[in-house]
Amino acid sequence: MQQTIRIMGIDPGLRRTGWAMVDALGNSLRFVGSGTIRSDEKCDLATRLKQLHEGLAAILHDMKPDEAAVEQTFVNKDAVATLKLGQARGVVMLVPALAGLPVAEYAPNAVKKTVIGVGHGDKAQIHMMVKVLLPKATFDTDDAADAIAIAICHAHHRQSAAGRLRLASA
Amino acid sequence: MQQTIRIMGIDPGLRRTGWAMVDALGNSLRFVGSGTIRSDEKCDLATRLKQLHEGLAAILHDMKPDEAAVEQTFVNKDAVATLKLGQARGVVMLVPALAGLPVAEYAPNAVKKTVIGVGHGDKAQIHMMVKVLLPKATFDTDDAADAIAIAICHAHHRQSAAGRLRLASA
Repeated sequence: MQQTIRIMGIDPGLRRTGWAMVDALGNSLRFVGSGTIRSDEKCDLATRLKQLHEGLAAILHDMKPDEAAVEQTFVNKDAVATLKLGQARGVVMLVPALAGLPVAEYAPNAVKKTVIGVGHGDKAQIHMMVKVLLPKATFDTDDAADAIAIAICHAHHRQSAAGRLRLASA
Repeated sequence: MQQTIRIMGIDPGLRRTGWAMVDALGNSLRFVGSGTIRSDEKCDLATRLKQLHEGLAAILHDMKPDEAAVEQTFVNKDAVATLKLGQARGVVMLVPALAGLPVAEYAPNAVKKTVIGVGHGDKAQIHMMVKVLLPKATFDTDDAADAIAIAICHAHHRQSAAGRLRLASA
């Protein structure tokens, strides 16, 4: 018998981190919730990282996901922005790892390919396809919508990975 | 009466994070300990960040520092390296913040200026001056030596910051 797996998708950022919770039972997906964690720009870096940690830890505690998936960071030419995002991402990956969850990573174009069928596309296309795949989904920011897309991406890829594993051990 | 303040210096890195504990009583410094936390390169990123977290949290729990100081990351042109360091640094700054410690940041050249008198210098000069300032200091890696230098830097700068605060409120 198949088990429902609750997946937490996370789109990391120092200013705003989007999160989403999606239940997967075989090929069928169910939207559970989404939201945005903000850090206070007036605070120092350590305090802001603590705010992200506390926000994510509270959601993990309340919603008890089984697996987490985080968007791989787009490394760009702005080294200061890359560093900031890296620091937020370190905390965002740590929180589910501390809770004992496996944490998968997906490149932005892999997420887009799963959700909108091609490896590129704008925010509006992601929003639209998230609503097609999960009609009950709601999101307060682009980051939360991206987090839903990441959770959907993981739901698809973990299936095929499990399929491959079954084949390999057959 | 002056109180002894225990300072934790940290030199963050994904592969190796150096740490040091220095007690400051006014202008007098005492070496307490130093070491290096390693993450297992064979593990995935989330697990490695968890290893750094657990190593640092154990040291904080054992040695109970009052304040933490972390080296500001040198942002270079290698975006992938910057991102890796950023992720480790996010976790390294989070751990003392979660324990309620203030976390100061110092640029590498500020650390060098405090310890060796100028804003540039090689590892050997830092090692030598750490031994001059704290003859009992021992360190197992360059990262641990850097962490001692960061703790010394904070001991000096927190004093002058406190002096400025006293003047301002006089």
